[in-house]
Amino acid sequence: MFMFDIEEYQKRLEATKKSMANKGIDVLFITDPANINYLSGYDAWSFYVHQALIVIIDEAQPIWIGRLMDASGAKATTWMYDENIISYSDYYVHSTEFHPMEFMAEILNEIGQGRRSIGVEMDQYYFSAKAFLTLQKKLPFASFIDATSLVNWIRIIKSDQEIEFMKRAGIIAENAMHAGVNAIHTASRECDAAAAIYYELIHGTEEFGGDYPSIVPMLPTGEKTNAPHLTWSDSNFKDGNAVIIELAGCYRRYHVPLARTVSIGQPSQRLDRLSEIVKEGIEEVMEVVKPGAYLEDLEAKWRESTSKYGIEKESRLGYSIGLNYPPDWGEHSASIRKGDHTVLEENMTFHFIPGLWFDHDGIETSESFYVTKTGAKSFTNLSRELIVQSPYQLPDQSKGIIS
Amino acid sequence: MFMFDIEEYQKRLEATKKSMANKGIDVLFITDPANINYLSGYDAWSFYVHQALIVIIDEAQPIWIGRLMDASGAKATTWMYDENIISYSDYYVHSTEFHPMEFMAEILNEIGQGRRSIGVEMDQYYFSAKAFLTLQKKLPFASFIDATSLVNWIRIIKSDQEIEFMKRAGIIAENAMHAGVNAIHTASRECDAAAAIYYELIHGTEEFGGDYPSIVPMLPTGEKTNAPHLTWSDSNFKDGNAVIIELAGCYRRYHVPLARTVSIGQPSQRLDRLSEIVKEGIEEVMEVVKPGAYLEDLEAKWRESTSKYGIEKESRLGYSIGLNYPPDWGEHSASIRKGDHTVLEENMTFHFIPGLWFDHDGIETSESFYVTKTGAKSFTNLSRELIVQSPYQLPDQSKGIIS
Repeated sequence: MFMFDIEEYQKRLEATKKSMANKGIDVLFITDPANINYLSGYDAWSFYVHQALIVIIDEAQPIWIGRLMDASGAKATTWMYDENIISYSDYYVHSTEFHPMEFMAEILNEIGQGRRSIGVEMDQYYFSAKAFLTLQKKLPFASFIDATSLVNWIRIIKSDQEIEFMKRAGIIAENAMHAGVNAIHTASRECDAAAAIYYELIHGTEEFGGDYPSIVPMLPTGEKTNAPHLTWSDSNFKDGNAVIIELAGCYRRYHVPLARTVSIGQPSQRLDRLSEIVKEGIEEVMEVVKPGAYLEDLEAKWRESTSKYGIEKESRLGYSIGLNYPPDWGEHSASIRKGDHTVLEENMTFHFIPGLWFDHDGIETSESFYVTKTGAKSFTNLSRELIVQSPYQLPDQSKGIIS
Repeated sequence: MFMFDIEEYQKRLEATKKSMANKGIDVLFITDPANINYLSGYDAWSFYVHQALIVIIDEAQPIWIGRLMDASGAKATTWMYDENIISYSDYYVHSTEFHPMEFMAEILNEIGQGRRSIGVEMDQYYFSAKAFLTLQKKLPFASFIDATSLVNWIRIIKSDQEIEFMKRAGIIAENAMHAGVNAIHTASRECDAAAAIYYELIHGTEEFGGDYPSIVPMLPTGEKTNAPHLTWSDSNFKDGNAVIIELAGCYRRYHVPLARTVSIGQPSQRLDRLSEIVKEGIEEVMEVVKPGAYLEDLEAKWRESTSKYGIEKESRLGYSIGLNYPPDWGEHSASIRKGDHTVLEENMTFHFIPGLWFDHDGIETSESFYVTKTGAKSFTNLSRELIVQSPYQLPDQSKGIIS
């Protein structure tokens, strides 16, 4: 029932242990659901309660600890022995009296790990301040080491099977983009376009189904295109407005994000011009991608390409992508920005999204790609032009085809 | 552009300040996105980076601090002055060199709040261990007080407008449940049913659109009904299997969750019997709800009703609901369980979900309700019977009607 061969999980585990050894970590206490999935296969929406995967450097299998009602799901989706699935009672959940980390610390003590060096993901959504202080208090003889992103950095190079998963996510992303664009006309509301996108994302194709993306589709409209993370309203689209669609296709938790900008009716000269500049910049940057290049080389090329038009971009240009859970599809390892000296290798995967946001408008065109021997290969196959959409519903829009 | 009158936000702020005063908190440093929204109106999918709303006990307006690209969204969706929207540069994002909490601590120092008592939400998804340690280090003269759930407890009694929002969420939940049930037949895949549900959740009705729920629809199937938090696969539904659907309708971030169990074809005697027991238990518990009752009275009634049939339930029976963001739609304040002495008041809102999970199967029927003068009033209006669905696609299933 798990997604990869046991051999692939064991390879990942070996790489993790090697990194632990380098950092002097005996016990890695993982709370990031993507890292838990990566090493164990565990896949469920249970990360809203405290849970952990514990990798012990001299033990063959990790240990999963979570809520009692989630233990069956852990047994079903992980490759480990059932004995390695340990659960706590429900009175620990959202209680002010009991904390799940007390239980987990007890387990670590019981199995003789209470005096070792323990790596914890200090800057991670699902490892709260209280979780850390509770562990620290209940494991007074342990030493704690910050292991934020340790597993994330191992995830950065994908296996061929992971690339195949992402190709499927790319097909889903492209279908969903078509569905979204076709639902943008003045007879339609923002929520209707979001619903059309969601249907495609989850339905997937006839051959394979879609998984939920870690971020909802975003479609800021009109003046709101200056704010990339606003979600939809139930207002109708307006003739003359622009709409930014940013979404990700997801296949078995692997993401391929994709952004395009749509003009409802005739675009302004300004939007047209911006879109040309962005398109040219993307094309030039994609040429720079090859094994051995630094990630910051991409930023330098972007700056060179766009600064001649007076464009300055304060925010980063993209990030490593792949396996993830809400609230983010970025991998929290390498970023496409100045100062990032990550050396590109084959089967690294990035979302290159040089979004531009101004006081009263914005534009996004993006490309998700993987690094091959010869350069960047996109996961999607969609024109990078500004999309101009008729304000009126066209008869062929039910077919999900952009003309 | 914000969702409630300024008067309602100010009332909420006053209640928050009163609670702060009781706990000796001068400055409340809020990182829970639902609490940020509740007090400021801020609504965007930006909680995957560090952000905070700061309530100072002797200042009229809170301060929002977040990422530069999200400041426009904050100006657009909050009721506060633009001067109270402060943003940090992008080099703080997912960096190992810089941390957004360094910036936020500097702001607190600059505005003279660095030596006061600061309340922080210690056990909250978006306040990481590193976030707390960084604040503590950069504010050496502040004293920190655990303010987890301080605002959550203020949220527990809804205003009439909040109840109206939840009634709309209830309509969406019911429509989505119908769509899900109708998509369950042997010619359909789990992902197709999830897609049909999602379409309804986001599309909403002709009068109002839907918002994204904080948890995806869950539909464990067959033996997987023993694990409540597994998400869909792309396998076809099988004749004779049971499917649990748990979803929430959401209107402007306000949730109404709803769970039902569906049998594809003839249900087993066991499932039929379990469903009768659960239905009787729910009916008896709903009678107990009235202002002045303790929340644990509901649990006692459930135990009385079901223990005579040999049913024991280890996990809690429900929780307060309303406004929320991923990864949870529960409010993290009151729980329907033994030992919870919350006194029921008018306009409190709960999801009563006495799910039963066994080694090889499970059942869920739930009711979201609000407390009125005279008792519980459900947000949805759906039979509590086990739903028996034909294994074959019926001609009227395109209309979204359960016969």
